[in-house]
Amino acid sequence: MFEAAELGRKVSREEFDTIAPGLRTELLDLQRRLREADFPVVIVFAGVDGAGKNETANLLNEWMDPRWTVTRAYGKPSDEEGDRPPFWRYWRDLPPKGKIGMFLSSWYHAPLLDRVHEQISVAEMDERLIRINRFEKALADDGALIVKFWMHLSQKAQKKRLKKLEDDPLTAWQVTPVDWQHYKLYDKFTTAAERLIMQSSKGHALWHIVEGADARYRYSVVLNILKEAITAHLERRDAMKKVAAELKKKPKAKAKKEVLPAVLARQPSILSSLDMTQNLEGDEYNRQLQEQRGRLSLLHRKAKEKGVSTVLVFEGWDAAGKGGTIRRLTNALNARDYQVIPIAAPTEEERAQHYLWRFWRHLSRAGRVTIFDRSWYGRVLVERVEGFCSDDAWQRAYGEINDFEEQIVEAGHALCKFWLHITPEEQLTRFTQRSQIEYKQWKLTDEDWRNRDKWPDYETAINSMVEQTSTQIAPWTLVEANSKTFARVKVLRTVCDALEAALKRRK
Amino acid sequence: MFEAAELGRKVSREEFDTIAPGLRTELLDLQRRLREADFPVVIVFAGVDGAGKNETANLLNEWMDPRWTVTRAYGKPSDEEGDRPPFWRYWRDLPPKGKIGMFLSSWYHAPLLDRVHEQISVAEMDERLIRINRFEKALADDGALIVKFWMHLSQKAQKKRLKKLEDDPLTAWQVTPVDWQHYKLYDKFTTAAERLIMQSSKGHALWHIVEGADARYRYSVVLNILKEAITAHLERRDAMKKVAAELKKKPKAKAKKEVLPAVLARQPSILSSLDMTQNLEGDEYNRQLQEQRGRLSLLHRKAKEKGVSTVLVFEGWDAAGKGGTIRRLTNALNARDYQVIPIAAPTEEERAQHYLWRFWRHLSRAGRVTIFDRSWYGRVLVERVEGFCSDDAWQRAYGEINDFEEQIVEAGHALCKFWLHITPEEQLTRFTQRSQIEYKQWKLTDEDWRNRDKWPDYETAINSMVEQTSTQIAPWTLVEANSKTFARVKVLRTVCDALEAALKRRK
Repeated sequence: MFEAAELGRKVSREEFDTIAPGLRTELLDLQRRLREADFPVVIVFAGVDGAGKNETANLLNEWMDPRWTVTRAYGKPSDEEGDRPPFWRYWRDLPPKGKIGMFLSSWYHAPLLDRVHEQISVAEMDERLIRINRFEKALADDGALIVKFWMHLSQKAQKKRLKKLEDDPLTAWQVTPVDWQHYKLYDKFTTAAERLIMQSSKGHALWHIVEGADARYRYSVVLNILKEAITAHLERRDAMKKVAAELKKKPKAKAKKEVLPAVLARQPSILSSLDMTQNLEGDEYNRQLQEQRGRLSLLHRKAKEKGVSTVLVFEGWDAAGKGGTIRRLTNALNARDYQVIPIAAPTEEERAQHYLWRFWRHLSRAGRVTIFDRSWYGRVLVERVEGFCSDDAWQRAYGEINDFEEQIVEAGHALCKFWLHITPEEQLTRFTQRSQIEYKQWKLTDEDWRNRDKWPDYETAINSMVEQTSTQIAPWTLVEANSKTFARVKVLRTVCDALEAALKRRK
Repeated sequence: MFEAAELGRKVSREEFDTIAPGLRTELLDLQRRLREADFPVVIVFAGVDGAGKNETANLLNEWMDPRWTVTRAYGKPSDEEGDRPPFWRYWRDLPPKGKIGMFLSSWYHAPLLDRVHEQISVAEMDERLIRINRFEKALADDGALIVKFWMHLSQKAQKKRLKKLEDDPLTAWQVTPVDWQHYKLYDKFTTAAERLIMQSSKGHALWHIVEGADARYRYSVVLNILKEAITAHLERRDAMKKVAAELKKKPKAKAKKEVLPAVLARQPSILSSLDMTQNLEGDEYNRQLQEQRGRLSLLHRKAKEKGVSTVLVFEGWDAAGKGGTIRRLTNALNARDYQVIPIAAPTEEERAQHYLWRFWRHLSRAGRVTIFDRSWYGRVLVERVEGFCSDDAWQRAYGEINDFEEQIVEAGHALCKFWLHITPEEQLTRFTQRSQIEYKQWKLTDEDWRNRDKWPDYETAINSMVEQTSTQIAPWTLVEANSKTFARVKVLRTVCDALEAALKRRK
């Protein structure tokens, strides 16, 4: 694999000086075109130490318009980062649409070095590459252009290069004992690297192996690949936009009055199997409420000590009582320990990112409680029902969501997902009440009535959602919420149970 | 995950009789439209025993035009199948474009049951699912529509159903002790199944979980999903075709005279680093040739005994001497033990399949030698250079090829890949000779001269090919072939070494 990158390729200073001005202009041109584009560019630099990863990123930074690029390099996780799932820091740094992000010591860094130092087996490295592949696939599916450069040096060239850096007082600081240690592990490094490249070179995220010995050659080839990749992707996205427009243009073949869908729509759903008569009243309610709140309060204190976070997701019909339930829960907590994140339409900044980005960013520090009032499930509920995203997009979201939640749970956090269910009759009663009580009128919008008309569509979507995303790792709790009191206690109890389980796992 | 498929959904006989005739007509209509389409449909049925996988496949077979469907179910591998990599039998059975293939006890069967019986760990099941995901992704990338049904039954329903089948003398044979054994492992089964579904439900190959207890409900929902999936895919492919045509019409922006590509084209390639003066003459050639042929003959006899197959790939410039080299090799073998597969333009049958299909089919039985005179590398050589396939297609081919070759090697076979290299000057000499010797003229075509003009493009493609597909598992051997005699001996020796290594691994 690497023999093709040990050929001694060189570009002379004269040659480089001839091509540089034209290249710079072209790059700036492309950047201008990118700004209008609906995708970000993610560039990964990885490879042998001393093969010029940093210098190449520097050159790009120098040549391009800095307002439209970001460069990120990663060391040991900070406190902030260590509190969250490992990929949190990468999500946080993703470039928005129209921008170029350059990543050094990226998500490939740790799996590779852990393998080189034999801290993980080949199979374990493969497992970690699965997560990386999913991450990149999710970005690519969302339109991102991903370009990965593997900078290579032969062992001989590496030695020469490290020596040269060391000999120059201006660059000597760049060479650390770690670099020499890596040099000694060269064979292990390339063996692991080959496996890594094989497992993670995909059509949508190809590794380009670059001979790193000569800086001007390295620059030329990186710039050329980048130029071609961006140009091709701009064209591809244009073509895809046309496909989408084509599909939209076509008048939906007026659905024949079909009997089959009607027969299927009549079937019970996961919601219709709930016992909606369950209730909890008066003293018994108060007793249980106090009991569970006391329990939560205690458990949370322990969780805070141990750095176990809690992530709660609230979904449910309009007027199902999400707000009230959340308040009963937060009352048992210290205001500095929780955050309620109300999810409405995404902001401009959020729209410029993958739809999961805005949820990743809200994951809070260790020991805290993050409550999502509506959540990432909007993708497979409202966006599906209203046609705000393509069928492809919500269908692949199930897998993306499972992966996201798996990362939360693997990081040791407690995760609960609640669907607050009320019957259509109960909803009507509550809507009517709202419209009659002046200080509640603001809660009721036209939107609510429109959503109500789409009840069967939502029911289908909810059923698929539970089917595809209620897993042993991250189960859905369906809450019978015709009785608000019953619902509140059930939610509290479920949160306590989950927290207890997470604390046990942490021990 | 499965709770949404334990709701007791039912379709009455009357209802079903009302919808059946319309559905049948619609299905046949869709099948007719499919016949003209440029993609196959792959349907996978999996799930709990007794949940109606077979019956559903039967119904589809009954209702559809049998000329355009194939159904395949898999048991223990046959002798034929055991001789090849495990996926050989699935590749062999793939439906061609325009047809529907239904798969029972498919590629998911073994990983799932091995996990249920705790013969493999969760991580090992995941590893096997990676291979499955790659397989399905390759098909989907090639345009295939993949629809996967997971038929579910609650444990109670499963018991009831097995009893019912047992009680009826007409169906009692369907229930085996294995079914009851699975019944007892129900919890383990669903735990493993959930993991399997989570890991392999992708946007392009979604699992649909179907409640299997009531046959008519099950039929209705499967038929409805199928109908919608095929219709949507037909539309999607149509739109894509239109845009592709649109893009083709667009005149290629006349490339500016750029300096950069010229600078890069001047760089040495993996080929230019070869020492082309190497030679082997006279007696020394004869001695070494005999020696290596003797060695091959012996090694091959051992390999045959042990069932170790050999797969040889020959690529190289026109007139580089592939034919002669292959003949020197096969002379040392028994005619019944080897096959030379000359790869020319694909047949009609082959064009209706994924491009790797025609290579999978030629993998021969254990202990045999299969020699590909040109190979799957056509995708990233001639097809890339001539623009016969899209950039996306040849770029993702690297990964697909690595996966294919990994499977050959994992099955214990010896694999060698040769690029026979000659210099342009040597090629010209050979072309001229061919044109002058009457009985050699047939070997020289206009095509050869045209290819020669594209030498630099091929050199770039060859360099990437080696970079992306020369791995420790399946390395490329570059053969300095200006001297035919040198080349022949080098090839023979490499084959012997590889066979020796494979025999060692087999012990």
